[in-house]
Amino acid sequence: MKELLSLFDRIIQKVNINLREIGFDVSPYVSEIIRLEHMLRFYAFYGITPNHPLNFEFRHSSLAGSYFLGRCQAINSILYKSDIRGDELKKKGDVVRYKDFEIHVNRDEGIHIQDTILIKTLVHNYSHDPETLESFFINNTVSTPFANIHGSPTDGCFIGPFATVDLTTMIDCVIGAYSYIQAGEIGHLSINPGTVWVRNPDQFNFLYCYPPDRLSHYIHFAAGSPPQGVFMDFVEDHKEAFQRVFEVVNIERPANIPNTASLDRFAVIKPKIRIGENVLVSQRAYLDNSHLGKGANAQENCHIINSRLQGYNVTAHGAKIIEADLGRYVFVGFNSFLRGCPECRLSVGEETVIMPHTIIDVQEPIRIPAGQLVWGLINKQADLESNSIALDDLSKIEGRFSKDRLFFEGRGALFVSAFRDRIQHILQANGAFFDGTRNKGHAQTNQNISFNTIQPYPEGKLEGLYPTILIQP
Amino acid sequence: MKELLSLFDRIIQKVNINLREIGFDVSPYVSEIIRLEHMLRFYAFYGITPNHPLNFEFRHSSLAGSYFLGRCQAINSILYKSDIRGDELKKKGDVVRYKDFEIHVNRDEGIHIQDTILIKTLVHNYSHDPETLESFFINNTVSTPFANIHGSPTDGCFIGPFATVDLTTMIDCVIGAYSYIQAGEIGHLSINPGTVWVRNPDQFNFLYCYPPDRLSHYIHFAAGSPPQGVFMDFVEDHKEAFQRVFEVVNIERPANIPNTASLDRFAVIKPKIRIGENVLVSQRAYLDNSHLGKGANAQENCHIINSRLQGYNVTAHGAKIIEADLGRYVFVGFNSFLRGCPECRLSVGEETVIMPHTIIDVQEPIRIPAGQLVWGLINKQADLESNSIALDDLSKIEGRFSKDRLFFEGRGALFVSAFRDRIQHILQANGAFFDGTRNKGHAQTNQNISFNTIQPYPEGKLEGLYPTILIQP
Repeated sequence: MKELLSLFDRIIQKVNINLREIGFDVSPYVSEIIRLEHMLRFYAFYGITPNHPLNFEFRHSSLAGSYFLGRCQAINSILYKSDIRGDELKKKGDVVRYKDFEIHVNRDEGIHIQDTILIKTLVHNYSHDPETLESFFINNTVSTPFANIHGSPTDGCFIGPFATVDLTTMIDCVIGAYSYIQAGEIGHLSINPGTVWVRNPDQFNFLYCYPPDRLSHYIHFAAGSPPQGVFMDFVEDHKEAFQRVFEVVNIERPANIPNTASLDRFAVIKPKIRIGENVLVSQRAYLDNSHLGKGANAQENCHIINSRLQGYNVTAHGAKIIEADLGRYVFVGFNSFLRGCPECRLSVGEETVIMPHTIIDVQEPIRIPAGQLVWGLINKQADLESNSIALDDLSKIEGRFSKDRLFFEGRGALFVSAFRDRIQHILQANGAFFDGTRNKGHAQTNQNISFNTIQPYPEGKLEGLYPTILIQP
Repeated sequence: MKELLSLFDRIIQKVNINLREIGFDVSPYVSEIIRLEHMLRFYAFYGITPNHPLNFEFRHSSLAGSYFLGRCQAINSILYKSDIRGDELKKKGDVVRYKDFEIHVNRDEGIHIQDTILIKTLVHNYSHDPETLESFFINNTVSTPFANIHGSPTDGCFIGPFATVDLTTMIDCVIGAYSYIQAGEIGHLSINPGTVWVRNPDQFNFLYCYPPDRLSHYIHFAAGSPPQGVFMDFVEDHKEAFQRVFEVVNIERPANIPNTASLDRFAVIKPKIRIGENVLVSQRAYLDNSHLGKGANAQENCHIINSRLQGYNVTAHGAKIIEADLGRYVFVGFNSFLRGCPECRLSVGEETVIMPHTIIDVQEPIRIPAGQLVWGLINKQADLESNSIALDDLSKIEGRFSKDRLFFEGRGALFVSAFRDRIQHILQANGAFFDGTRNKGHAQTNQNISFNTIQPYPEGKLEGLYPTILIQP
């Protein structure tokens, strides 16, 4: 394991150099969550299909449990149960619009991960940075449990547990636990835990900060200890069911799944599941006793338990939905935690948008009306007063408003339409609107993937490191 | 599946061109045994260890179920459940003695398979051809079920079911079903089924031919049909147990296996197995209710059922041992079929050599004394008269002798010592003599192999073909 240890040290050193201006030392945060012996226990896998451009390159890396699809390169990196999905990468000849520019993509886009540690992190989508359209890179970065890096280059960062960086170009940043950042280009920033920040310069700025004491009940991460709290316990309590999924090479497909729907073979499908047409269930999703109506999607690492989703629902990466009833077109953002209980279920009316990183942990039955925007920490019906607004009302806002810990400024209509467009795009990309011939999406094209498993050297000084692997068409 | 079909046709055409002088058309033999849909159902796997030089290259090939270890290249080939083991390849700097020559190996040896179809074929060992010491190649060749290509280049051949070419350089040949050829350089030959031919020019010549009518009860292969007979039925009856072995990614190791022994994770180990020190059990071996004493080995595709092997036994590739008791140092050659039954067991005395491709199918209890050479087809004790000779007696022969269907000429002592040396070498290479520090062999170095599985394109015109895969240190 000598080489793996020295790779680990080298990455930490590189990230610390990047973060020297912020004065942040990564070491005490990672030493407790990266158990190098895990790097031996889990295999990595990559998908082969005729629908996704192939080009894998892994060198001097350890990849335990990682899932790869599409063009991807990992060099000098340690990845652990990371879902790196390259099924939305741009292709040569695509045209990207950015402000007034129309930019032609001049080669197939690829994911490049270099000198990076990703622990149970999802990396997905495509580069939204107009400067690097063909390269989706993450360099010299440490990302801790269940963080999401979505749609964008990142460079020299530390990303806390259950944090998300979305559609954004970061440079040298520290992102606190459970923070959600969709803020355009940022750099040299240290973001506090529990910051939900959605900014589009000159258009709008949405900023919510969790009360630190209440957030730490859910997720708490300090130097020298692994992350702790309800979120970690929840994931831990449900992980056993994944064992069989990883044990077998090919797994049987459950009966009664429509031909237009797709269940990833690394998802856990417990009994009493009803799946509608055009449904997409992604890898490491967990479904138990639930109903997913037509066009709904259950994204990576989400949990949907004892719940009913009426259709065209987006359940984003890492979201949890327990004992809840969701109307059509309800959007549940990244890492949101919606927990009803049998005596007090949560109900969410149609077209409501649950902001990424929202916690609704019910202490009494809660009913959220249709067409709302919901954020922050909610335990009771009355909390909606300070933590929601009707989308129609928000659309009328020009200027600023604040509610409790939320601060908003800019044009509400642009914020609402940005969200609606994105939801529409996600449903489209996932194949929710497939009509038998048109509007194919991931639910249709990801149905038949061959998975190849790759394993590390089992002993010796290269123990835990993977040999160099190149896969080409 | 378009590309796979055209690859198949191209290989057949190439082999037919090679065999034009013999006037042999391969097509009607292979069309019935190669079911291209199998190429989709099974995955291939390659082993990663620090003990074997790595360098895999697969291009434009279909590899279903194949097992690779060591440096290996497969180009334009169709392999199906083939065990291609590269753990005895020569290394740069090795010195090979051939007659009066001392030849230095100037680079690591690699296996090269090109334009080849191998169906459930074992390819193993290293090149014994002094002209191609660094290249272990098999080109434009079709090899049918359970054939063995052992230790040597082959070029443009058709090899029948359960046939073996051993230590030999072939060129354009047709080798009939169940024929065993260890004859030095041969070429442009068509060998009848059931020919057991061991020749060392200027030293000895051993030739046995099975009675065709009796052999066809065991294995029969004609144009237009798949191979038939007892051997095929036997393998078919035992294949179900392999299902779980291939289903799971990592398999538990049975308890009570000495640290010095090695059980391949793709072997089937049924209950009531006792394994001694330094035992080697290879991939696709099948063990049921048997005892393997210290230093015994059970090689690829062998079956050992209700039997007791006292120790230092060689059970070569594809041999079957059922209801039998074998003394120490008993050697059972390639594809031999030793079948006792509960009321009439077979017993074999120590140091006896069962020639490759021997059939002992008991109709009454049979007891073979120690120190014999045994060949051909035996059903009763009395058959030993015409099908065995004491090794000591054989050693005294100078000239020629014949017994029933056996013809021998040359120096018996050289024949006996060649066999004894080889058995000693096999035991040595397999680690039978490991003393805790010295004499390590495969039983010790192959214990801890990471297996990576590789799968083909699941659909589209490349369906059943594998992407190009390169694996390097």
